[in-house]
Amino acid sequence: MEFRFSKLAQKLKSSMIRELLKYANVPGAVSFGGGTPDPETFPRHQLAEIAREVIEKEYKYTLQYATTEGDPELIKQLLLLLRRIYGLDGLSSENILITVGSQQALELVGKVLLDPGDYVVVGDPEYLGALSAFRMREAKFLVVKFEKDGPNLDQIEYHLKRMQKEGELSKVKFIYVVSNFQNPSGITTSLAKRRALVELAERYDVLIVEDDPYGVLRFKGEHLPSIMNFGGTDRVILLNTFSKILCPGLRIGIVVADKQIIRKLVLAKQGSDLCSSSLTMRLAARYLERYDVLEQVKPAIDLYKKKKEVMIEALKEEFSDVCDVDWTDPDGGLFVWTTLPDIDTMEMFKYAEQRKVFYIPGEAFKPYEEPSSSMRMSFCLPSFDQIKEGVHRLKLAYLDYVEAKGLKCR
Amino acid sequence: MEFRFSKLAQKLKSSMIRELLKYANVPGAVSFGGGTPDPETFPRHQLAEIAREVIEKEYKYTLQYATTEGDPELIKQLLLLLRRIYGLDGLSSENILITVGSQQALELVGKVLLDPGDYVVVGDPEYLGALSAFRMREAKFLVVKFEKDGPNLDQIEYHLKRMQKEGELSKVKFIYVVSNFQNPSGITTSLAKRRALVELAERYDVLIVEDDPYGVLRFKGEHLPSIMNFGGTDRVILLNTFSKILCPGLRIGIVVADKQIIRKLVLAKQGSDLCSSSLTMRLAARYLERYDVLEQVKPAIDLYKKKKEVMIEALKEEFSDVCDVDWTDPDGGLFVWTTLPDIDTMEMFKYAEQRKVFYIPGEAFKPYEEPSSSMRMSFCLPSFDQIKEGVHRLKLAYLDYVEAKGLKCR
Repeated sequence: MEFRFSKLAQKLKSSMIRELLKYANVPGAVSFGGGTPDPETFPRHQLAEIAREVIEKEYKYTLQYATTEGDPELIKQLLLLLRRIYGLDGLSSENILITVGSQQALELVGKVLLDPGDYVVVGDPEYLGALSAFRMREAKFLVVKFEKDGPNLDQIEYHLKRMQKEGELSKVKFIYVVSNFQNPSGITTSLAKRRALVELAERYDVLIVEDDPYGVLRFKGEHLPSIMNFGGTDRVILLNTFSKILCPGLRIGIVVADKQIIRKLVLAKQGSDLCSSSLTMRLAARYLERYDVLEQVKPAIDLYKKKKEVMIEALKEEFSDVCDVDWTDPDGGLFVWTTLPDIDTMEMFKYAEQRKVFYIPGEAFKPYEEPSSSMRMSFCLPSFDQIKEGVHRLKLAYLDYVEAKGLKCR
Repeated sequence: MEFRFSKLAQKLKSSMIRELLKYANVPGAVSFGGGTPDPETFPRHQLAEIAREVIEKEYKYTLQYATTEGDPELIKQLLLLLRRIYGLDGLSSENILITVGSQQALELVGKVLLDPGDYVVVGDPEYLGALSAFRMREAKFLVVKFEKDGPNLDQIEYHLKRMQKEGELSKVKFIYVVSNFQNPSGITTSLAKRRALVELAERYDVLIVEDDPYGVLRFKGEHLPSIMNFGGTDRVILLNTFSKILCPGLRIGIVVADKQIIRKLVLAKQGSDLCSSSLTMRLAARYLERYDVLEQVKPAIDLYKKKKEVMIEALKEEFSDVCDVDWTDPDGGLFVWTTLPDIDTMEMFKYAEQRKVFYIPGEAFKPYEEPSSSMRMSFCLPSFDQIKEGVHRLKLAYLDYVEAKGLKCR
């Protein structure tokens, strides 16, 4: 049977991560692949009890359709939480939309801002889920290097100037940036760059979409003001999610934006799924009311901190003799980004597979397809021992690969 | 602040239903507006207990990310249920996708099948959520009259022939039909028309999207084979939902289709929201495992049956003296469709508002904007007395309107 799929569907490919993660279930394997949090960090007893309660006592809400905007009780709690996390005052419920995870937020932002052929400024590397949401809208990417302190601003300005010269500036809709502990690189955009990004965006009249799923998972250093703190809702759309600070299973994402933008996003969501689950929204609301989520998440942050330290130690031990090797040492989040000289991490993958260690090749995070010598290594799920063992295997795989290809450590 | 929204966003309007339902909260009002089930029919005690259990014992699944296809345990239960409801054998898990309610299913079907300018055959009247999902893909509608026994087949054939003549047949992607107790009309497509629809679809090589959220809510008469029973997964995509037989708060929709189509839908869903809530999916799975949902829903069906009877009785009592008045008397579902001669139910709405009774004007269900002399009257939420009182008020509003406009009962 030949089906006549849409052009969009013909282009849809399974994400590389999804395909590669299949290998990670090999017995005895160590996986640095998935970016899923450790389920032992989820407050399951509390959530179990609240779930029972909100179904018994609030069934008229929790089992019924919700409004598209989201549970008003959750929005109330979120306004308090946004104030605590970001110091954002002056927001009202009309500035908030609750989505099915961050991914829906990205897709809705794409729908309301992007026409086919419009441009988005993205990093290299960049979060895959954002790239795929914007690709669904047939957007084009203006790519800038993601450096150790955030996006290369000169490159952003170069792109914007060029577009202006070509009379295409109005088609550049926004700059997308994961501001804290970026997926995949672990990089945090510096304070200076946050300010400068807003200035640039104002000068060229483009929006900024600030995505911050990991900001709360900070191991060390000071919490930085968000880009929205500098730009406000006139200039910035802020995305957040409960997936990393509470748990992903509730599928709760958050958009903070200007009221006009929220209204459009609500209309787009109406056509997408009518509304999110009232049960999971109310469950999150009552959890936030009763427990201090920022306190509750501290053991998880401690755990990730230690795991990251173990990974960095192991990398030093195993890879210090490889010249020009480089890794990020993030102050939070879930990912270390390791770059090896002269190699293609996609090619190296089969050697890693033989050594039973898995990572995500950097190619997955390229806005346009091209090889990469980097890899994303997630430290959140494997145990301490597995991390050490995995990095050791990675070194062996690297040596296998280098030998097979006749490469030499420079 | 002027935001540069996409063309799609500029076209997005709030649904008329949503706007009108705001009036329904007026104190003392009777609303026939919403199509939401009665929350007293939800098995809250069972769901509360299972929710507690699946979070406590299966937290590694229920609080974590799910796969995009959906919970395998739920899919297992669904295969059994689809067999019981439709007698559909030979399906495997690869024929199933779980979505965030039926609305997401509609939007994903639109994404994978429709390019801008493609055609969909729809009824007049038609389910609003489907129209808006297809409009998001910039589809055009080939409209056919929805008669007392389903879509007018001659009109479908006329459209298809014309498109063939114009060399545009390949742009007609599917025929959309709510096969049982259609929203808004309450009409069930007859057995003969189901067969004939498949023949037509095969002859002209178009797909059929059969949407069946209400089929289980049958008050009387025999359950009819689904269109998919005649056409199979080669020809038919079947949509269903738990919103009406269990509860809407879990946001669980189902697509049954050919494996190739499911694969494309999965990829589209990946970009839309990564995955549905593992918690609500597993909750539904364990509920289906432990309870017979088709037994559990019987009291709800009885209740809706009685409410419908009260509404039909009231209509007879109040409106029998209005010549050419017409209403459907559905064998199931949630809606009665009432048509009054020579009036515009949108215009009449303000008279109804003064009399504190609410309905949804037929205009909301027109594929292309035009006035309608029909209205959707939902009987599931108001009490017996409210139904009687509401129909009485409706008559008064009708008389007010007729008088004000100088119309005469023909």
